[in-house]
Amino acid sequence: MKVDVCFSPALYPYYADSNNYIVVVVDIFRATTTMCAALKNGAKCIIPVASIEEAQQYKAKGYLVGAERNVKRCDFADFGNSPFDYTKEKVEGKEIVFTTTNGTQAIEAAANADVLTIGAFSNISALTEFCIQKQKDVMILCAGWNNRFNIEDTLFGGALAERLVVKGYASASDATKVALSMWQEAKSELKSYINRTEHIKRLEANNLQDSVEYCLTVDTANLVPLYDNVNKVLKL
Amino acid sequence: MKVDVCFSPALYPYYADSNNYIVVVVDIFRATTTMCAALKNGAKCIIPVASIEEAQQYKAKGYLVGAERNVKRCDFADFGNSPFDYTKEKVEGKEIVFTTTNGTQAIEAAANADVLTIGAFSNISALTEFCIQKQKDVMILCAGWNNRFNIEDTLFGGALAERLVVKGYASASDATKVALSMWQEAKSELKSYINRTEHIKRLEANNLQDSVEYCLTVDTANLVPLYDNVNKVLKL
Repeated sequence: MKVDVCFSPALYPYYADSNNYIVVVVDIFRATTTMCAALKNGAKCIIPVASIEEAQQYKAKGYLVGAERNVKRCDFADFGNSPFDYTKEKVEGKEIVFTTTNGTQAIEAAANADVLTIGAFSNISALTEFCIQKQKDVMILCAGWNNRFNIEDTLFGGALAERLVVKGYASASDATKVALSMWQEAKSELKSYINRTEHIKRLEANNLQDSVEYCLTVDTANLVPLYDNVNKVLKL
Repeated sequence: MKVDVCFSPALYPYYADSNNYIVVVVDIFRATTTMCAALKNGAKCIIPVASIEEAQQYKAKGYLVGAERNVKRCDFADFGNSPFDYTKEKVEGKEIVFTTTNGTQAIEAAANADVLTIGAFSNISALTEFCIQKQKDVMILCAGWNNRFNIEDTLFGGALAERLVVKGYASASDATKVALSMWQEAKSELKSYINRTEHIKRLEANNLQDSVEYCLTVDTANLVPLYDNVNKVLKL
């Protein structure tokens, strides 16, 4: 078994030499953390769509819609991209359509993977168990920011890779080695390490930093979201 | 002024928001180190070409040709991708056609930049001076390996960024911050840090590790190679 970290959806074709992976899509701030929160609060499923237009079409059909671009909630949407928007009262039993700047594009890039799942610090232990049970190579796909490398998704890559390497997985690439090394450096003071990132500045500029601590907290959602072959993300 | 590091030619479109940069293409093992060595030894210019076919056409016209794929010299070529191949006796006064797995592709990706230059540890001081004199934003473009992230090019990115940050340049991105942090960790024991890379294993497997130390040594070539607008790389 091996574990790899891919820094951007634009690099995915150069990392995935087959579809024979568990791909873990990660967008710590905030799409994948938010998807885990919505499923934890009882959402029936999440329907990820890449474009605003698709999300609007679903809205017109009566679906609940979460939509964000450049950290802000889109006007027409019921929810933005904060995990705190998706309360039990609002989402329980509902199908939620979801589009974000980066996270849903990453899902689209890896849609042909054998197993496609959603990772965040909030479900890291459940996800680690799932990967080990499946006995397949793991590819952690960082959503990044408009295809650019970002620190927070890579740190999650290092954190999950570390848990798998301890179980005997090989580190597959230079990218994985750097993610592991970053995580080693950051983990004891994660919040201060994260304060140097581009995205923290973006969230602060829009007064959206309230969910940062939640997004960095492990194991608040003991579940594994799975992307099925009819474009829905469901709780395993 | 700002300095940015782009981890792969495939990410360049997402990093370069204009052509108004000095782009520094880097492929430490070994293309850009080798180009600096050839120019230092008196080559009149280097003509980078992306494909083997183009290189063969030049060879048929009588040019000296350096050509490498997957670390090995191509059979038809006069030189491979080792800096030691390009001796003064062989290259002085000559135009050299050059194609490598990654380096020449990176040059092609950034060919529209206002200023395109070639970086290696061997010319880092000359290059730093050049950037500071030009007073333009700097984009360090890592050639990587088949568009994948690699450690050695990123370390050079961190080394050059560090010299510019000391002179007041801003670090432009999460990628630059990570390159700087890697360089801080690696610089006191560069050779042992580099031993963990994918490419060292590739070179060793082909018995080509003889030039590694040279590729990591600073300031053996006090020159700045410039890509002009007729597809030649010339010594400034």
